[in-house]
Amino acid sequence: MSIRSGPRKEEAIFAATLELLAVHGYDKLAIESVAVRSGVNKTTLYRWWPSKDALLAAALTNSGLLSIDVPDTGSLRTDLLAVARQIARLLTSERTAPIVTAALTVAPRRPELAEVARTFFADRMAREQPIFQRAWERGELRLGLDPASIMDLLAGAIWFRLLLRGGEASPAFLAETVDLVLEGGTQNL
Amino acid sequence: MSIRSGPRKEEAIFAATLELLAVHGYDKLAIESVAVRSGVNKTTLYRWWPSKDALLAAALTNSGLLSIDVPDTGSLRTDLLAVARQIARLLTSERTAPIVTAALTVAPRRPELAEVARTFFADRMAREQPIFQRAWERGELRLGLDPASIMDLLAGAIWFRLLLRGGEASPAFLAETVDLVLEGGTQNL
Repeated sequence: MSIRSGPRKEEAIFAATLELLAVHGYDKLAIESVAVRSGVNKTTLYRWWPSKDALLAAALTNSGLLSIDVPDTGSLRTDLLAVARQIARLLTSERTAPIVTAALTVAPRRPELAEVARTFFADRMAREQPIFQRAWERGELRLGLDPASIMDLLAGAIWFRLLLRGGEASPAFLAETVDLVLEGGTQNL
Repeated sequence: MSIRSGPRKEEAIFAATLELLAVHGYDKLAIESVAVRSGVNKTTLYRWWPSKDALLAAALTNSGLLSIDVPDTGSLRTDLLAVARQIARLLTSERTAPIVTAALTVAPRRPELAEVARTFFADRMAREQPIFQRAWERGELRLGLDPASIMDLLAGAIWFRLLLRGGEASPAFLAETVDLVLEGGTQNL
């Protein structure tokens, strides 16, 4: 039994929402099409999500398609590397890259969707919190640091390299990025 | 005398290109409209830039609107802080934020524009290179580091915080980000 309540076939609804977003874009995303694609009555959809934005926010945040496994490998370095690999995979895999790109290109033009983005990333950060909690308990992370700043660096670098600079997120790049986030670029004499 | 050659009123042409991109988006950006707005004959524009993409690439790379001053403050930390402030300003100021957002939302959907993005960021990186060269000469930066990785972290974190997470790039955030890039998040016992 899941703790969070939702309609039957919830994951199919979320997947249909994200796939239609990827193919048609936000403007042409229609709750009716989600109903057809997921085989769920549209009144059911409206009962759970009163608007397109509400459905989209729920799909982005809760769909298994975009979820990441929160690692617990025993060290901060290998935990962050596992997260970095998953972010890079979401941004490049054939199934998820078009969804991420569509969501990315929608949000900055639509202030009303900023709340969706905020919800999504706040949820991500809350799920990733145990990584940092355990790192503090192991004495691996400087006290007083905001874990969101660490994730901004790590996720930001991967986004920037892949989607803006048009580069690749090779294993060497991901490892170097995690090392930089942990050790910094300063020469330690 | 400028070394780079270009038509008269080049900056007006670039500004018109970027402002029209911001207002109308890539699809409706037309060389004819750039000609009208900048008061330059459209045959002149076609002579210098044979396509819309060529004009857009030149405008993004060379317009003063999006340029950043490469600082030389005497330390890597204050140089990076100066760059970070300029990136945050470009992403938030009333005049430039719509241009950046328009460019951002276009690029991932149009593979043919990936080359424009690559050109833009390669040019940025080449200009920023002296910051890192001087840091190496002062012994401030670990040898063997790729400056692009440092800039991915710094710029990526600011983009991520502002445009994806929907947060703010406060002075404290920028300072913390630069410190993290330089010192890393690891607890140094």
